[in-house]
Amino acid sequence: MKRGFGSDNHAGIHPHILQSLSSANQGHVPSYGTDAWTLLAEEKFREHFGEKAQPFFVFNGTAANVSALKAAMNSYQAVFCADVSHLQNDECGAPEFFTGGKLISVPSTHGKITPEGLEDLWIRRGDQHASQAQVLSLTQPTELGTVYSVQEIKNLVDWAHGKKLFVHIDGARLANAAVHLDLPLKAFTTDLNVDLVSLGGTKNGLMMGEVVLFLNPSLSQNFKYIRKQMAQLPSKSRFIACQFLAYFENDLWKKMALHSCAMAQELYRSCQGIPGVEITQKPESNAVFAKIPRTWLKALREDYFFYVWNEKTMECRWMTSWDTESKDVQGFVKKLKELAAL
Amino acid sequence: MKRGFGSDNHAGIHPHILQSLSSANQGHVPSYGTDAWTLLAEEKFREHFGEKAQPFFVFNGTAANVSALKAAMNSYQAVFCADVSHLQNDECGAPEFFTGGKLISVPSTHGKITPEGLEDLWIRRGDQHASQAQVLSLTQPTELGTVYSVQEIKNLVDWAHGKKLFVHIDGARLANAAVHLDLPLKAFTTDLNVDLVSLGGTKNGLMMGEVVLFLNPSLSQNFKYIRKQMAQLPSKSRFIACQFLAYFENDLWKKMALHSCAMAQELYRSCQGIPGVEITQKPESNAVFAKIPRTWLKALREDYFFYVWNEKTMECRWMTSWDTESKDVQGFVKKLKELAAL
Amino acid sequence: MKRGFGSDNHAGIHPHILQSLSSANQGHVPSYGTDAWTLLAEEKFREHFGEKAQPFFVFNGTAANVSALKAAMNSYQAVFCADVSHLQNDECGAPEFFTGGKLISVPSTHGKITPEGLEDLWIRRGDQHASQAQVLSLTQPTELGTVYSVQEIKNLVDWAHGKKLFVHIDGARLANAAVHLDLPLKAFTTDLNVDLVSLGGTKNGLMMGEVVLFLNPSLSQNFKYIRKQMAQLPSKSRFIACQFLAYFENDLWKKMALHSCAMAQELYRSCQGIPGVEITQKPESNAVFAKIPRTWLKALREDYFFYVWNEKTMECRWMTSWDTESKDVQGFVKKLKELAAL
Amino acid sequence: MKRGFGSDNHAGIHPHILQSLSSANQGHVPSYGTDAWTLLAEEKFREHFGEKAQPFFVFNGTAANVSALKAAMNSYQAVFCADVSHLQNDECGAPEFFTGGKLISVPSTHGKITPEGLEDLWIRRGDQHASQAQVLSLTQPTELGTVYSVQEIKNLVDWAHGKKLFVHIDGARLANAAVHLDLPLKAFTTDLNVDLVSLGGTKNGLMMGEVVLFLNPSLSQNFKYIRKQMAQLPSKSRFIACQFLAYFENDLWKKMALHSCAMAQELYRSCQGIPGVEITQKPESNAVFAKIPRTWLKALREDYFFYVWNEKTMECRWMTSWDTESKDVQGFVKKLKELAAL
Repeated sequence: MKRGFGSDNHAGIHPHILQSLSSANQGHVPSYGTDAWTLLAEEKFREHFGEKAQPFFVFNGTAANVSALKAAMNSYQAVFCADVSHLQNDECGAPEFFTGGKLISVPSTHGKITPEGLEDLWIRRGDQHASQAQVLSLTQPTELGTVYSVQEIKNLVDWAHGKKLFVHIDGARLANAAVHLDLPLKAFTTDLNVDLVSLGGTKNGLMMGEVVLFLNPSLSQNFKYIRKQMAQLPSKSRFIACQFLAYFENDLWKKMALHSCAMAQELYRSCQGIPGVEITQKPESNAVFAKIPRTWLKALREDYFFYVWNEKTMECRWMTSWDTESKDVQGFVKKLKELAAL
Repeated sequence: MKRGFGSDNHAGIHPHILQSLSSANQGHVPSYGTDAWTLLAEEKFREHFGEKAQPFFVFNGTAANVSALKAAMNSYQAVFCADVSHLQNDECGAPEFFTGGKLISVPSTHGKITPEGLEDLWIRRGDQHASQAQVLSLTQPTELGTVYSVQEIKNLVDWAHGKKLFVHIDGARLANAAVHLDLPLKAFTTDLNVDLVSLGGTKNGLMMGEVVLFLNPSLSQNFKYIRKQMAQLPSKSRFIACQFLAYFENDLWKKMALHSCAMAQELYRSCQGIPGVEITQKPESNAVFAKIPRTWLKALREDYFFYVWNEKTMECRWMTSWDTESKDVQGFVKKLKELAAL
Repeated sequence: MKRGFGSDNHAGIHPHILQSLSSANQGHVPSYGTDAWTLLAEEKFREHFGEKAQPFFVFNGTAANVSALKAAMNSYQAVFCADVSHLQNDECGAPEFFTGGKLISVPSTHGKITPEGLEDLWIRRGDQHASQAQVLSLTQPTELGTVYSVQEIKNLVDWAHGKKLFVHIDGARLANAAVHLDLPLKAFTTDLNVDLVSLGGTKNGLMMGEVVLFLNPSLSQNFKYIRKQMAQLPSKSRFIACQFLAYFENDLWKKMALHSCAMAQELYRSCQGIPGVEITQKPESNAVFAKIPRTWLKALREDYFFYVWNEKTMECRWMTSWDTESKDVQGFVKKLKELAAL
Repeated sequence: MKRGFGSDNHAGIHPHILQSLSSANQGHVPSYGTDAWTLLAEEKFREHFGEKAQPFFVFNGTAANVSALKAAMNSYQAVFCADVSHLQNDECGAPEFFTGGKLISVPSTHGKITPEGLEDLWIRRGDQHASQAQVLSLTQPTELGTVYSVQEIKNLVDWAHGKKLFVHIDGARLANAAVHLDLPLKAFTTDLNVDLVSLGGTKNGLMMGEVVLFLNPSLSQNFKYIRKQMAQLPSKSRFIACQFLAYFENDLWKKMALHSCAMAQELYRSCQGIPGVEITQKPESNAVFAKIPRTWLKALREDYFFYVWNEKTMECRWMTSWDTESKDVQGFVKKLKELAAL
């Protein structure tokens, strides 16, 4: 299939990561997370997120999110998350199923929630009839491709910790936030006292592999059992770990994220001034959101697949990835211009 | 690590399967199970299990087992399974967690359960205080490396269907049963009206990949939602599918299974007559179970890792895999003989 | 405690119902729902809701609601319910916990939802990433004391059945809706093809007792197991059943409901023209909702307890019950007038 | 119905307890556990179980058991309980459903388990593939009517606490154990450092009412939310509390228990020497277990209902209750003798 702008999980595996799978495929090694590759990869996470960070590998992003929540809450508790969050809309009820608890939708603007929005929902504390919020879950970058600033996260963490809530970051694309902020990964997670992070690799060049990363060690004590009971303990764990080893080697993670984001920037800039194309969100990671005339849709998707984000407003999501090339962007823009000229 | 006899998941990826990952790593493809590799792999399962077979890929064996059960039962129902089954002992409670229901332990001999054993537990039908059995789950090959004959499965299916129960096979190593029985996969599943199968690839040469295989189409209708909610929907699904494509190509699955089982046979035969080694189970797949003197353990495991199956009786499990070589077996046997000679 | 306007569950047991407990307290009877009182009470429900109605007694309203939902859906499915519904706000997450599924908040006006509001949320059908709606739950009377008309319910049922959804009515105060509509109970339930109803007795004169009432028999087949597993099977079931026998005898249910509603009407009428009192909802059952000046609260609640419904707007809920007397209403109104005159 | 020996929940309400319902039926009181009756009843539990005891009222025995377990464990953990326990056999899977965890059957003799039996199952500690035991649940009196001695409980608690497990007592008939042991309730619970108790009233003269009693305060902190989410928070809570007030007044609980147990003793003694009647368990509470010839069953149950405990061995359970009269016992014994004489 031609490269399109459908999703960063339409892209394949970065060659270096595929090579690492091959390198790890030597002889017998213990299974279930006790192999040398896993230990080395865990060390890499501590380098990037600090000495106290405790990573656990799982298979996919849904699992990383919901197992993290399960580690931090009980069934009679609740999670604050953005109304547009993946947790709320795209997990087929996995958060409710695994935790037994409730999600509380927090109104968002350009994907972001604020302490003020949370404060409005800070009600009925101690009331036995109401699920008690226990976790604040932020998505970084947001579902709409925007990125919380360090100060914004700090304010949210302060608010949450002031209420004795844990802070979770859904970081399926955390690398992209790092390159947008031009900061090390820990600068907007560990250093801000975030408690736990779901960090994704699949959307940034891995074959498959996600991490539940405990920054607050008090939460991880029994997580190995949670992971196993949730059917997320890989047997041949070396083959997830070795992908992350390559991911961190020579800053491959950063190079891929920089490239994805640069492609989104190029697309964004190239759309400026095309009549009919209305950019709707600040492109701060690897996606451009834009409204287009409904009549363009069919022709445009013939060559480059992408998703309509909102059927009613015709807001579309154009997502770049580590393997997007400038010629893909320019081909797409050319098509847009042709349609605009009709 | 030197090859040992710890588990077939200590082995790596067969080179043809690794090659298939590389071949599938071309361009963009749709995610979440709608790509061409997935469609082709699904077709392979229909070739092997009949036209009505419906396969769904998941990440690991725990997931394959428990999602299959969840598709076939409600929380107030129960599953008959062997007292030595993986479901009962090795899933950290995943069956109970995902289904909300109960496991009923059925006494087993050499890993096998019988209609007579089940009949003893067929009580309190219709009694609202008792979980109502809904599924019979068989493990083929069993946890102890024995294999149910066609007639044994037929009898169990007849018993279960006579009671309106569904029959599930935990086939984490189903390929090994096929080569032991010298039958096509469908001959002891589809052809015997088994309702659903968890079929494993990871323990027979895959990097990772398992299948929930519906042979009774009435059960699969909403399974896509169950899989997603259980956090088992792979995003880059082509990379699981392509492994199974290679698995079925030129009967690779069968060649690997034949080899694993042959290695177990060689080990079994070579142990005959070694004083102190007492074979405890018929070696019908890729494992040899044997009691050895407790004093041998340390020395023996220095060179070849394996698990003690029963700490009290010193019954050990020696497991072969697709990459076990005759020299591994002979090296191990040599060591056994040395210890016996002391 | 003096009678107040806090809740209809602050009131006690109607003397006839208490008498029935005494009458049923004779000798030994079978437990767990097989006694004669239970059979007789079940017959009463069929008289009121039609021959196909199947009632199951449970302990409280939360249980009636969530066990009804559990009978009608799977964990990967969802329930449409009003944003102000008890299900959504007042069950401490019980719906999510028991069903494993998701609640979808439907915007409401004066407590009511509409087909148009539902249509806006009818999206992503068949999308495996989204919980699939399976039940529409209506509250009758609504949380705000308004009552759906027959036509409104009909329209909602038609919409839901057109989408193959089941319709559930949370009828914790269903009797009050019947007297407001001046219709038999079945006229706005069974006759409109509602599928299942949670019908409450506790808030209308019972000591405790609620019913899950299946009007669509296809849903009730295994409900006895669901009830038991949910810890809602009463052992001495006669003592819940006998309360409902008295409830239906000589239309006691209706007399109590008529009285409760008449008291709310008297309160409503008496509030007309009191400066500072702003009625916010049509009083169609046994509650009056009104905004009052914040400064009145302390003095007003000294004599008559009630709840502030919305701390921000100072909308209060004044709830009458079967034992409210005209002098209570007039005493409260006198107090309101005194405060207004200050 | 004539009094029989079916179950102590076939009996009705003790007149003093019924009278208490009537007395509590005065005016309006707050709901959901904040009324004066509830506070007074809670105080009574502290008198009997010590100052730190924290009681929470729930509706039935299943609920008391499973909510207690839920308070003490996580879903990846397990409960040790006797193979004959109610938890294991008579809750339709409620323990698994509510806790998400696993029950581990401990072999029992005459209903009792021992530290030795537990020690055999103390395996795979720290192994992520195995549910980790967290609670030891004892039934006192046991399902077979025997009573653990103080020393037996002490030994079991010591074993469990030595392993850092919590100890739960299923005390659906705890009063009967107290009178058999001739000890205050706290002497074999609080004083032995039992962590939590499910204490039943329904089987000893209440209409309905059970208590989850926390003796270890560290476990009760969030139990109010658990109770609510489990649909076990009574709205008109005064009517459960007032039953327990009468229960404790003038030692009514003890008088009823003494009477029940005395009736069982009378039955036991009267059966001595009747040919064909073989007593199978020491009658230490309010039940006699005996094998009888299968041919007697029909005739015997015509007059006095009872349950066959084991269809295969024809072991029957004859249960007495607070309202059993000597003439019932003698009538039954007469019948036994007549059958023996045929």
